[in-house]
Amino acid sequence: MNTRCEDFFPSRRRLVDEYLAEVTGGESLSDITEAVRYSLLAGGKRLRPLLLMAAAEAAGADSARFLPVACGLEMIHAYSLIHDDLPAMDDDDYRRGRLACHKVFGEAKAILAGDALLAWAFEVMLGQGGVPQDVLVKTVKEIAFCAGPEGMVGGQTIDIEAEQTAGKNLSLEELQKMHRAKTGALFRAAVLAGGMLAGAPDGQLAALKDYAGNFGLAFQITDDILDVTGDPAAMGKKAGSDARKNKITYVSAFGLEQAEKLARAHVGKAVLALAVFDGEAGYLRFLAENLIARKN
Amino acid sequence: MNTRCEDFFPSRRRLVDEYLAEVTGGESLSDITEAVRYSLLAGGKRLRPLLLMAAAEAAGADSARFLPVACGLEMIHAYSLIHDDLPAMDDDDYRRGRLACHKVFGEAKAILAGDALLAWAFEVMLGQGGVPQDVLVKTVKEIAFCAGPEGMVGGQTIDIEAEQTAGKNLSLEELQKMHRAKTGALFRAAVLAGGMLAGAPDGQLAALKDYAGNFGLAFQITDDILDVTGDPAAMGKKAGSDARKNKITYVSAFGLEQAEKLARAHVGKAVLALAVFDGEAGYLRFLAENLIARKN
Repeated sequence: MNTRCEDFFPSRRRLVDEYLAEVTGGESLSDITEAVRYSLLAGGKRLRPLLLMAAAEAAGADSARFLPVACGLEMIHAYSLIHDDLPAMDDDDYRRGRLACHKVFGEAKAILAGDALLAWAFEVMLGQGGVPQDVLVKTVKEIAFCAGPEGMVGGQTIDIEAEQTAGKNLSLEELQKMHRAKTGALFRAAVLAGGMLAGAPDGQLAALKDYAGNFGLAFQITDDILDVTGDPAAMGKKAGSDARKNKITYVSAFGLEQAEKLARAHVGKAVLALAVFDGEAGYLRFLAENLIARKN
Repeated sequence: MNTRCEDFFPSRRRLVDEYLAEVTGGESLSDITEAVRYSLLAGGKRLRPLLLMAAAEAAGADSARFLPVACGLEMIHAYSLIHDDLPAMDDDDYRRGRLACHKVFGEAKAILAGDALLAWAFEVMLGQGGVPQDVLVKTVKEIAFCAGPEGMVGGQTIDIEAEQTAGKNLSLEELQKMHRAKTGALFRAAVLAGGMLAGAPDGQLAALKDYAGNFGLAFQITDDILDVTGDPAAMGKKAGSDARKNKITYVSAFGLEQAEKLARAHVGKAVLALAVFDGEAGYLRFLAENLIARKN
């Protein structure tokens, strides 16, 4: 499996990078695409497109067919990072080891680049061919839900409010609710979309939801761990930034050792959920198990 | 016709207001919906939903069926106003006679409320029932295009750049290009969407495009005229704000009298384009002719 994975993921990541560059590479009305491309083509793990494609492979489809929807998810992710970094939001100057969009192009352009990416993502996703149109409508609608006020934007609202309200600390329960929405919802959208586009039956879709929930929690816990133990060069930002902001994290709540144990437990549950695929979900398994080893 | 119009538009506007209130009225994950509702339910002409419904009627459909897509357009419009008013953008404190979203909820919430509305709009639109799913995909994709970097966001970029670059003044040609994208694209999306959802044949769709282009120009010219001659109370903002910002407008370029003549000419062309509908496009005609008489 590992040999296949070592082949699959780099080749799929390359497809994603090429598609994103091509989609945003044409002539354009204004120079907002310059800011869009600066942020969108800055590398990144392309985790959401890869999750979508790994889920589609688990359900028996050739995942390279689903590049439009997969890349739309990456465009939504990229928009959210640009807006999160704004001075009025998290006020971060660096992203992926280079200056944040608003530091290079100014605040107005960064707001507009995010807005452009979000609308553009839907145009790209709705251009997906080769699937029944009712399936496409259902899939993109689910993605819109996960990106909106009951998903990513809702989670970011809870996070920002906690950060900007003096003396307000989230409880562990609130922290989990926030993460399930802020980062978890788009992971769920990615995994579900892969299954839906591939025509997975309900039993498999339920398993994918279960996988995605545990994947999201494991991702967040390892994120908190990396903020304490990570190599700033690999992460592209300073370590310890959560602690400096006095944010509650899985590490501050449980200690490093327990947090690591919890992350492993969620990876285990994610892998367990894949049992219904009869060994065909190797790429999803690889992505989950790799969370523990990740460096950024 | 006028009797029918005096009935049609208020009743349709009421349906739109009710639908928007209902869609955003449920329980929600965070309090971002408070900021969303503050801006979305603040009244407004609901011109984009009305254009969609008037076009659908022209093509022979019962337009009340298309509330989800019609209201999605209004949500996109509302998001754009929230972001346009931000300090980093146009920096306006008032909108529709009340404090702008960011003055009430702060900048972070205003950015997030706009983001929430844009994603939410696509979820609502993709919930449209009663039309073939391939028609829905094509229609919403067209709306996404018109809202994105080659439409509304691209136009706003050109506008902001001209405003924030010292000594940069748009030529009349650039001004028209900017307006065609910034406000014209969403009008075109609205009118075309109404025709597409109603199953209008290509000849009617071409006529609707022609109508929408002229409607957009007439709208923008009367907007510029109102900025000089308008009643601040009716507009909900101070008159003369363009002149204070030293913006080129149709009035500054042509003078008031010529601008009024030009607006009437575009209304005339818009109405002329409706000939293919054999007198069935009365609502679209009413909306165009009303531009000249509008007070806000």
